[in-house]
Order: sequence, then structure tokens, then C-alpha cells
Amino acid sequence: MKKSEFSFIGDIATLFGALPHHGFEPIGDDCTVVAMGDDSLVITTDMLVEDVHFLRAASTAEEVGMKSLHVNLSDVAAMGAKPVATLLSIALPEGAQGEWAEAFMRGYHAVSEREGVALVGGDTTASRDRITINVVAIGRAPQSNIKRRSAAHVGDIIAVTGKLGASSKGLVDIMFGDLNTLAAQHHRVAQARTAEGLWLGTQCEVHAMMDISDGIASDIKHIMNQSNVGAEIDTTLIPTDYDLRYAIGGGEDYELLVTVQEDSFDAIAEALYRATGTTLTAIGRITDGNELRWLDGGKPTEIDIEGFKHF
Amino acid sequence: MKKSEFSFIGDIATLFGALPHHGFEPIGDDCTVVAMGDDSLVITTDMLVEDVHFLRAASTAEEVGMKSLHVNLSDVAAMGAKPVATLLSIALPEGAQGEWAEAFMRGYHAVSEREGVALVGGDTTASRDRITINVVAIGRAPQSNIKRRSAAHVGDIIAVTGKLGASSKGLVDIMFGDLNTLAAQHHRVAQARTAEGLWLGTQCEVHAMMDISDGIASDIKHIMNQSNVGAEIDTTLIPTDYDLRYAIGGGEDYELLVTVQEDSFDAIAEALYRATGTTLTAIGRITDGNELRWLDGGKPTEIDIEGFKHF
Repeated sequence: MKKSEFSFIGDIATLFGALPHHGFEPIGDDCTVVAMGDDSLVITTDMLVEDVHFLRAASTAEEVGMKSLHVNLSDVAAMGAKPVATLLSIALPEGAQGEWAEAFMRGYHAVSEREGVALVGGDTTASRDRITINVVAIGRAPQSNIKRRSAAHVGDIIAVTGKLGASSKGLVDIMFGDLNTLAAQHHRVAQARTAEGLWLGTQCEVHAMMDISDGIASDIKHIMNQSNVGAEIDTTLIPTDYDLRYAIGGGEDYELLVTVQEDSFDAIAEALYRATGTTLTAIGRITDGNELRWLDGGKPTEIDIEGFKHF
Repeated sequence: MKKSEFSFIGDIATLFGALPHHGFEPIGDDCTVVAMGDDSLVITTDMLVEDVHFLRAASTAEEVGMKSLHVNLSDVAAMGAKPVATLLSIALPEGAQGEWAEAFMRGYHAVSEREGVALVGGDTTASRDRITINVVAIGRAPQSNIKRRSAAHVGDIIAVTGKLGASSKGLVDIMFGDLNTLAAQHHRVAQARTAEGLWLGTQCEVHAMMDISDGIASDIKHIMNQSNVGAEIDTTLIPTDYDLRYAIGGGEDYELLVTVQEDSFDAIAEALYRATGTTLTAIGRITDGNELRWLDGGKPTEIDIEGFKHF
């Protein structure tokens, strides 16, 4: 649970912070973590609501099945863990209980199979008119591999996997009726960086890690808050094929945002590329203080793009 | 996930059964189980949908908060485990994002505090018009305490905690506008048998255990299927304050259904009562074969009440 998501009812994290934790890490990261022996389990959950997160007219049921799993696997990847199991709850109105549900499960199964993840529980129920999906993903890793938002150091390179902006550009394409652009396809399915997260988890020079679900302008603040540091990001360095506002403020890219010890960055980026074929691009640096500063080719600039919000 | 809940899309358990399990027990019990060292974690999830599981006009937001947690804690109790943590996802339409959400969280927090359970993650999102709630509950127990539906032996006494039928009688009261009967109150809040499940988990003479969420007529069949046994139940022995059809076919009682080694039953029932103040009543016996037989004061009778179905 990202803490900000519960701001509508005040500080839930504080309210519940007084309760016994039984070894679970409190709210504030992509997943909660519980140590069991030498390993840790990481657990995350995400809810997808029809007409908020997807449109039945714009996404096939199979795509919704794939995406609902990927967005959760992305949170597991962001911890440096290997996804092992999921639980699926789904509320279906009458019109979606036959073919739609079967196609949804085909998509969910295809991703489960590709990622080697078990389905170990869930719930199905009726709903009056709209579909709601809730997925829980569970990952496992040696305790020492777990990456947290709170581990950024001053001087770290800020970097991202792949390219940003495709998903939100795709959402705009879909809104204008272009369902089949490359960006629209990217938006409808998403793709968790499972192999990349797992590999980055094994590198001690990778300090903080999280996935980009609301856009870097919003997500970098979680690392800043949890690590008590500042950041500067150079917009000219952000890897994107689209308009910069999609890359900075657009949601649902599900790329990984990491901070890496400066003198190790080039070696890490090269080794990640060799291991997974995925680029790691430096876009800025962790700084003293608690401000987020934007640069344009090294010169200070102002950006007023906020992160993407479903709520 | 109770396997039958996914029958609308064929045999999901079989489809996913071919995937690697990573140490998680497959679908078929109240919770999935994963061993970590000497302990096991048990994990369950349940979804509550407005106008299917609750009516905003008939339940207060606090009651919905309490109930959404209790129904999940009931699944943890049914495994013989201690509940330790939960994750909460909630989709809120505009009209429920203020006071309703705050009152919901007060109810959820009150039960979390009473049961000593942490809130370790979740998700909040908007929805178009109806509220959907998904709770994940996690329990922990020594591996040897975990009780499964598959552990019933021929000759075991079938027994239930407390009394049956109040919740479904309460639902009928609510449908007729009587919101404040004792039964209606029972229906609106529910109450997990946490202490009882934990205690029964420590007793090796208690073989199979599950919670009664769909009515014993339906739920006993899960134990029969998983244990490959039959059962006979004497309707005159079923503890209830209401009409027998509520007690047999009514859902949402959240009492525990156990099978106990015959020669230990009296001692177990007495000790449970001493430990928790809750009665354990023998209502029948596990038999050879795979039939469910109903008795009326020892004489065969016919019952055609099916379990309660939300779907």
C-alpha cells in the first residue's frame, strides 16, 4: 500500500502503526516483507475496477487477465524477489460470467505459466453491474536481496529500466479510438520486469528500488520520503519515444526505478543488459536535503506535472 | 478458494495445477499453506461486494468494516492458525470516500486491535457507483497445528462450535425491515472463532476443520470430498435457536465444523468450553463411502436444502 493512497481517511499507517506487527514490515513499500528463516516473503495486492482501470470496450478479457497479474508481479519485482504464488478475487456481473470470465482466466493463466507462478487461492462472487478484480502476489527471496524504497544514499545515480511514457500515451490513443497503436497495446497488457527485478535484487550496489506506477514525478517522492533524501532529475536524460509529459507524469509504465552506488553504475547497467537485454538509463542523482529539482540539460528548470492518479 | 466457486469457468484448479507450486498447498482449503521453517503461514482472501454481500442502507459502515475482517479471520481460525496480518483493498464511489470510508476504517481497526492483527498493505481506488472490499488475512502456526479439510477419518464425530442459523435468520429479518433483531445484528457483523480455532489447532484428536460459510449441508461436502469419506448428520442434534432450514442451509454463520476422534470427543468438548466458553456439539459421524445421509432422531430422513450461495 502506498501510503498516499489512504490520505482520504487521514493517516491510516499511524492509526494501525500501534498494533503488533508480528514481524511484518509496516505500510510504505511496494510489498510488505516478512522474514521466515533465511528467506523473506514479500506480499502485495492491487485492485482493478471496470471503468476506472479498464474499459470492457477497449481491452479484451484476456488482456485484462494478463494486466491484472502483471501490475502485481511488478510490485514483487520491485522488491528484488521471485514471484511464486498469487490469489485472485473477482466480482462478475451476469454478462461477464461466461465467455468474458473464461477469456480472462486464459490471459491470467498464460502469464502465470510464463512467469512460473502458482494460483493458490481466491474468491469469486457476483456483482450488480461492473467487474472488480483483486490480485495478491507473493514473492520469495533471500533476506539480503530485498530492496526497499528507504535505502537510497546521497550521491546515488537515479536510473530507470527500459523507456517511459508508452502506457499513458497508449491510454490517450485509446481515448481517441486508436486501440491498436504500439502504445495502446502496451497500456492494455503491461509487462512486469520480473527478470530485471530479480537480477537487480542480487546486486548490493543497487540501493533503493520501486516500480513506476504513477509516473516518476510522483514515484521518486516515495524514495525521497522513505530515504529522507532529495533528488535531481535531468529531463533530457529520460528515455522515451513520446512526449516528455507522458514520460514524467504518465502512469502504469511498470518500469523499475532504482538508485545505484555511483562508481558501480556503468558496470551494473552493462551487466543487467547482458543478463536480460534491458537497458538501465541514468536520469539523475540522489541529493542532500529533501527537494526534488528538475534539470534541462544540466540547467535548472520548472516542471509542474504531477503523477498519474486513479483516485 | 473453495473449488466450487470457480465452477463457472470449468476446472481452474486442474488448469493451474500443472504450474509449479513453490511449496504452497493447492486450492481446496479455507487457506493456502506455505511452510517456512518450523512454522506455516496460512493465507486467505475474500471479496465483499455492495448489494451482494451488504446493503449500505442495512449495515453501518463500521459494521461492514468489522464483518469484512471477521469473514477472513474465520478462514484463518479454520486452519488452526493465529491471525497476524491483513491487506485491505477497497474501491469507493464518490459518495463513500468521506465519512463512510472513515467509519469503515474505524470498524476495521477495532477488530484489528481486538484480534491483535497488523494492517500491512492494500490498495485504494475509485469506483463508479458501488463499494467493493477485498481482504487478505495471514495466519501463522506451528506446522503440526495446521488443520485441513482432507484429514477426516471414518468413525470421527462431526461437531460444530456455538449455534447455527442466526446469520441467515438475520438476513431474512433485514429483508423484512427488522434491522435490530439479535439475528440481524449477528448477520451484520459476524464473529470469527479465533480463540476456538487456535485452541482446536493444538489438539491432535481434532482431525478435519473448516468454517461454516455456506451452511453445513453444503460445507460438509467439502470435507467429504477432500477426505474421500461419507457423513451422516442428525438434524435433531444441530444446535440452533431458529428454524432448522436456517441452521442447515443458511450461510455466514462462521462457526467451526470439525471432525474429532470418537473416544476423545467428550474430553475435547469439555476442554474447549473451559478454555474459551464456547460449546462444541456433536451432530453426526464420518462414514465409509461418499454419501451424505441425514437422520431425524436416529432415523433416516430426506433433506433438500442446498447451501447458501452468493453466486
